[in-house]
Amino acid sequence: MRPLHVKSRLCHVNLIDGRNHNEAIANKSDLKMIYYITPTYPRPEQIPELTRLGHTLMHVPRIHWIIADDQSLCSTNVLNLLRRTGLPFTHISSPKPYVYKGTNFPRGVSNRRAALVWLRENVREGVMYFGDDDNTVDLQLFDEIRRTKKVSMFPVGLIGDYGISAPIIKDGKVVAFFDSWPGSRTFPVDMAGFAVNIEFLTPTATMPYSAGHEEDKFLMSLGIKLDDIEPLADNCSKVLVWHTKTVKFKKPNLKIDIERISKLPKYEDFANLLKETSRLGMAGIFSKNGSKTFIIKDRKTFEPLSLLPTLV
Amino acid sequence: MRPLHVKSRLCHVNLIDGRNHNEAIANKSDLKMIYYITPTYPRPEQIPELTRLGHTLMHVPRIHWIIADDQSLCSTNVLNLLRRTGLPFTHISSPKPYVYKGTNFPRGVSNRRAALVWLRENVREGVMYFGDDDNTVDLQLFDEIRRTKKVSMFPVGLIGDYGISAPIIKDGKVVAFFDSWPGSRTFPVDMAGFAVNIEFLTPTATMPYSAGHEEDKFLMSLGIKLDDIEPLADNCSKVLVWHTKTVKFKKPNLKIDIERISKLPKYEDFANLLKETSRLGMAGIFSKNGSKTFIIKDRKTFEPLSLLPTLV
Repeated sequence: MRPLHVKSRLCHVNLIDGRNHNEAIANKSDLKMIYYITPTYPRPEQIPELTRLGHTLMHVPRIHWIIADDQSLCSTNVLNLLRRTGLPFTHISSPKPYVYKGTNFPRGVSNRRAALVWLRENVREGVMYFGDDDNTVDLQLFDEIRRTKKVSMFPVGLIGDYGISAPIIKDGKVVAFFDSWPGSRTFPVDMAGFAVNIEFLTPTATMPYSAGHEEDKFLMSLGIKLDDIEPLADNCSKVLVWHTKTVKFKKPNLKIDIERISKLPKYEDFANLLKETSRLGMAGIFSKNGSKTFIIKDRKTFEPLSLLPTLV
Repeated sequence: MRPLHVKSRLCHVNLIDGRNHNEAIANKSDLKMIYYITPTYPRPEQIPELTRLGHTLMHVPRIHWIIADDQSLCSTNVLNLLRRTGLPFTHISSPKPYVYKGTNFPRGVSNRRAALVWLRENVREGVMYFGDDDNTVDLQLFDEIRRTKKVSMFPVGLIGDYGISAPIIKDGKVVAFFDSWPGSRTFPVDMAGFAVNIEFLTPTATMPYSAGHEEDKFLMSLGIKLDDIEPLADNCSKVLVWHTKTVKFKKPNLKIDIERISKLPKYEDFANLLKETSRLGMAGIFSKNGSKTFIIKDRKTFEPLSLLPTLV
């Protein structure tokens, strides 16, 4: 397998926990740190996705959020969001290799590899977990995975044709897997279905650019055997994480002359909203191309936005 | 319009805030209470959706979560989830009227009506807000809507053909709307785009069973004028809530004899996982009907689940 090399850029690291510490979070410095690795990519729903995942992580003591973003720039939107959480974090720009553009290149691999490189170079102990930006995690999962000695596993809901993907446990040990897609995999599990103790991240650890086999080949690269796996979530009888997916929003292209609107007296707020909409990637706004837009003033008036100052 | 009558059942009310109070939440009893009304319905992603929305609400001081569920039973899954949040809550069973089953009946109306009835009968002051179980809300929104004197409005991201739905502000006042679907509406806004002070919930307040016009007709029933609307989110120039949508998971039907597996020695955990999968509605599990399932033991063995005890 290709070694763990990846072109990426470290945007920002924050090691300070700046949260308003409540009882659940304070005085827990003896706990092992959880490194929560989230691959993400720019799209209209990126910021809301990371916003609500952030709300989950903000409840968890001793957690460091690694966001690896599939774009060549260090996104200001993502950095601002990370700062607002108060969490310790690492922000990485890790675009997929250019040669793979437009192919069925497995999404998220460059990002996870970049996060693994950062971990290897900067972290000696703790537990790592791959949590996508659209997964849903029960807070109980964090207490569970923090106990990981080598590699732990647990069920993931809303996967495949069985509604669930999980190890099968006998006498407290993983003996087989219940997952609707075998795919010739030794460890047929979802990316959100395991955690790894960082002391156990061997130098051979890597993740291949191989769609559908990322989890299996990563686990294989750790050199683990079935017998090494620690079952969590009540011996894999509970569901504490779900593979929820968010509907892709079709980003519209709108023909709006923001500059003109910015110069109209008294419409600065609306001009700023249009800029925010564009900056958050929810719509492309262009002065010369795109769909016409309208404003609605009482139910009778539906007129082109360009007439704004004469209408209201 | 039909008055605010609805067949519903009050499942459980909890008025105690049982959260581990941190600085952000404690000593805020002078704040107005926010009543966050979430219509929901049973489906595979219901519990994860409510789980992550709960994580958002758990950060907010002085909030009471009203979940109105479109099923005739009081769901134990939903009640357990509400209890675990520590939030004050009202749990209502509010199935849609039977005559509307199978029609293009607007989803969520029975639920919101039932919540409004409960508010009218039990609450004198505070602010109400309609937040669906799949919306994403920035924590800043709560500070904003708490200030609502009559009716406040603000932009909602990821809506329609403009990527945004928002009031247009001039001189600090709402003068028109930017929304890609006029629909002959006086107030062309999304359900997540406004909040109402409960003292302003007039006796005539109601919501019609009219798809696409629920917001407009509800706001009309309050008797408000454009001039009454308080623009929030920096004069409607910021996006603090998004109409994210979750992909519907196709619930599979599986032919598994859980009773038989429960009786096998040493497979109780797996039997319990299957029961959990069924109880959470992620798969239908039947002893006589449904798809065959398999287990995977190392990459070579892919055998029917019924052979479980002989395989591992």
